[in-house]
Amino acid sequence: MKIAVLPGDGIGPEIVTEAVKVLNVLDLPFELEEAKVGGAAYDAHGHPLPEHTLKLAMDSDAVLFGSVGDWKYDKLDRPLRPEQAILGLRKNMGLFANFRPAICYPQLTHASSLKPELVAGLDILIIRELTGDIYFGQPRGRRESPDGEFKGAPEAFDTMRYSRPEIERIAHVAFQAARKRGKRVTSVDKANVLETFQFWKDVVTEVHAQYPDIELDHMYVDNAAMQLVKAPKKFDVLFTGNMFGDILSDAAAMLTGSIGMLPSASLNAKGQGLYEPSHGSAPDIAGKGVANPLATILSAAMMLRFSLNQEEAASRIERAVQAVLEQGLRTPDIYSDGTQKVGTTQMGEAVVAAL
Amino acid sequence: MKIAVLPGDGIGPEIVTEAVKVLNVLDLPFELEEAKVGGAAYDAHGHPLPEHTLKLAMDSDAVLFGSVGDWKYDKLDRPLRPEQAILGLRKNMGLFANFRPAICYPQLTHASSLKPELVAGLDILIIRELTGDIYFGQPRGRRESPDGEFKGAPEAFDTMRYSRPEIERIAHVAFQAARKRGKRVTSVDKANVLETFQFWKDVVTEVHAQYPDIELDHMYVDNAAMQLVKAPKKFDVLFTGNMFGDILSDAAAMLTGSIGMLPSASLNAKGQGLYEPSHGSAPDIAGKGVANPLATILSAAMMLRFSLNQEEAASRIERAVQAVLEQGLRTPDIYSDGTQKVGTTQMGEAVVAAL
Ligand SMILES: CC(C)[C@H](C(=O)O)[C@@H](O)C(=O)O
Ligand SMILES: CC(C)[C@H](C(=O)O)[C@@H](O)C(=O)O
Repeated sequence: MKIAVLPGDGIGPEIVTEAVKVLNVLDLPFELEEAKVGGAAYDAHGHPLPEHTLKLAMDSDAVLFGSVGDWKYDKLDRPLRPEQAILGLRKNMGLFANFRPAICYPQLTHASSLKPELVAGLDILIIRELTGDIYFGQPRGRRESPDGEFKGAPEAFDTMRYSRPEIERIAHVAFQAARKRGKRVTSVDKANVLETFQFWKDVVTEVHAQYPDIELDHMYVDNAAMQLVKAPKKFDVLFTGNMFGDILSDAAAMLTGSIGMLPSASLNAKGQGLYEPSHGSAPDIAGKGVANPLATILSAAMMLRFSLNQEEAASRIERAVQAVLEQGLRTPDIYSDGTQKVGTTQMGEAVVAAL
Repeated sequence: MKIAVLPGDGIGPEIVTEAVKVLNVLDLPFELEEAKVGGAAYDAHGHPLPEHTLKLAMDSDAVLFGSVGDWKYDKLDRPLRPEQAILGLRKNMGLFANFRPAICYPQLTHASSLKPELVAGLDILIIRELTGDIYFGQPRGRRESPDGEFKGAPEAFDTMRYSRPEIERIAHVAFQAARKRGKRVTSVDKANVLETFQFWKDVVTEVHAQYPDIELDHMYVDNAAMQLVKAPKKFDVLFTGNMFGDILSDAAAMLTGSIGMLPSASLNAKGQGLYEPSHGSAPDIAGKGVANPLATILSAAMMLRFSLNQEEAASRIERAVQAVLEQGLRTPDIYSDGTQKVGTTQMGEAVVAAL
């Protein structure tokens, strides 16, 4: 079982270090190989996703990813910016299905900005399409405006697009995921304005015919943003395109109060996956030893379950995380009165001890 | 002063009726003329935005708009659906600047799904560009996929675009609005992924040079969705493109707990404006006499201020709304223990009485 370890930028290296400690203690036949990615790779090799990093990832069963991005790379040309590394990995590996659970941990209910009764017990699964949409659509760029009120003026443009097979495969993923949960799927679109999402809605409705046991409803993205804020527990599986998924999954994660705890998985058709925390690279706290490693540790658990077929080890890690929460250990992002504040290393070592 | 009154669908007619009562009691030289729009216009004339409705709107100083949309029109071809009426009015009248205040009324702090301390005193102004972006960009439609993994498969596509003058004019609006408020502007983009929004960011930065007294920061849309949920009071003026603005302004409005109270204004370069509540047509409660007319009444106040130059009358209406809230009157959407539940008409008449 080969795992590519890509720590990346910001707090990435610190949190990945703790997740690797956890993996190592499991005593399973892993081969872990580390490589630079994002700004760190740009600094060392002049490119955010060097050939050898991409090759390592593609040749592995799974990728354990930290995070990329730092303000100091803001002035680089787009193809050299850290974010291009994660976009390149998603596209090249065909990681079209992004799973982002938005769970409110019972111990952290009070940490949510929502009223406790609205989030207690919250458990939504957001499924975001990850290799299509306006993220990758061509053509895109700058040009003279070809028509309209400002014909001839400089403009920039992008192309949103989804093909039928792209929508079909993510719809199957969503319906099958719902089958293992509450059997309800909300497909989020903007069919009232966008051709792309009218098509999305039509194709999802067709695929749904194969899943008579699953309840499907359609919701506009603006309304979905409102309902997430108003009554998040009404959702079971929420699934949508790449752009809307980017926005809604972050809002949902933040709502839980547990964003430092939320893992994510991005899978391709072969079962290869990239596993990363839902939060970002947080350059403001990088190197201070205060970042929460639990989202990354739980991402490693998801990796064991989804790409490495090690369900038992995955559950062991999840129970160990529960145990440290019950011991009252908290990194600053989830700290509250009456609990014990710990740093990144201490938290990682507590999980190792609980194992 | 000519006002086009377009009640529309769902709860639109009920809430507009109350706003018209309020306008009539002011004893100002208005000429009000009503026309059908949306589904109601489709039913009567076969088109959601008939020629005469559009002409009436364009020939008026201001449009008082209810809301459009109902599930029963979902099966119509896109050009005949109710939403096309509002999109057509925005585009034809050139209403590029959408103002959506997200205010938490002190009497309604507890009605927010956020913890009271996070929303008490909340007062953000969201400015959304309203005539550009992927809402109107051409080309769009269905075709065979021209390239990529699924070349040849059916696909649908849309074009996101912004030209320099479009970005410049909305940036000026945002900076000038901030000057009358907290002097801080957050421009929301997705420059790390989209060419359109890298250009947006560049142009906004340039325009900012003319406003040295205003503080500008840039935020990615996914982060903005998180920050709105986490600490909405940190924003003063948040401004963004049409698509992101659609999503974020609805999320922000819902956060306040006051969505039934929030007006909006959409202005063109000539000062003509369309005024509508921030909430939708709510077909589920249409005709039941329970809809909250206050957002529409406050939209009428905004209309007096921005398009009709009647500041005094605008303030009178706003004070009257404050007064009915203080009397404890509440429609069901904002009702809580210890207040008095009233219907649409009773609420409208209470405002009239307070005037
Ligand atoms: C870093 C960025 C390109 C990325 C995205 O927009 O997909 C991030 O926000 C995410 O959600 O993983
Ligand atoms: C009805 C719909 C086309 C419209 C939009 O997306 O702009 C609505 O959601 C709004 O925000 O006014």
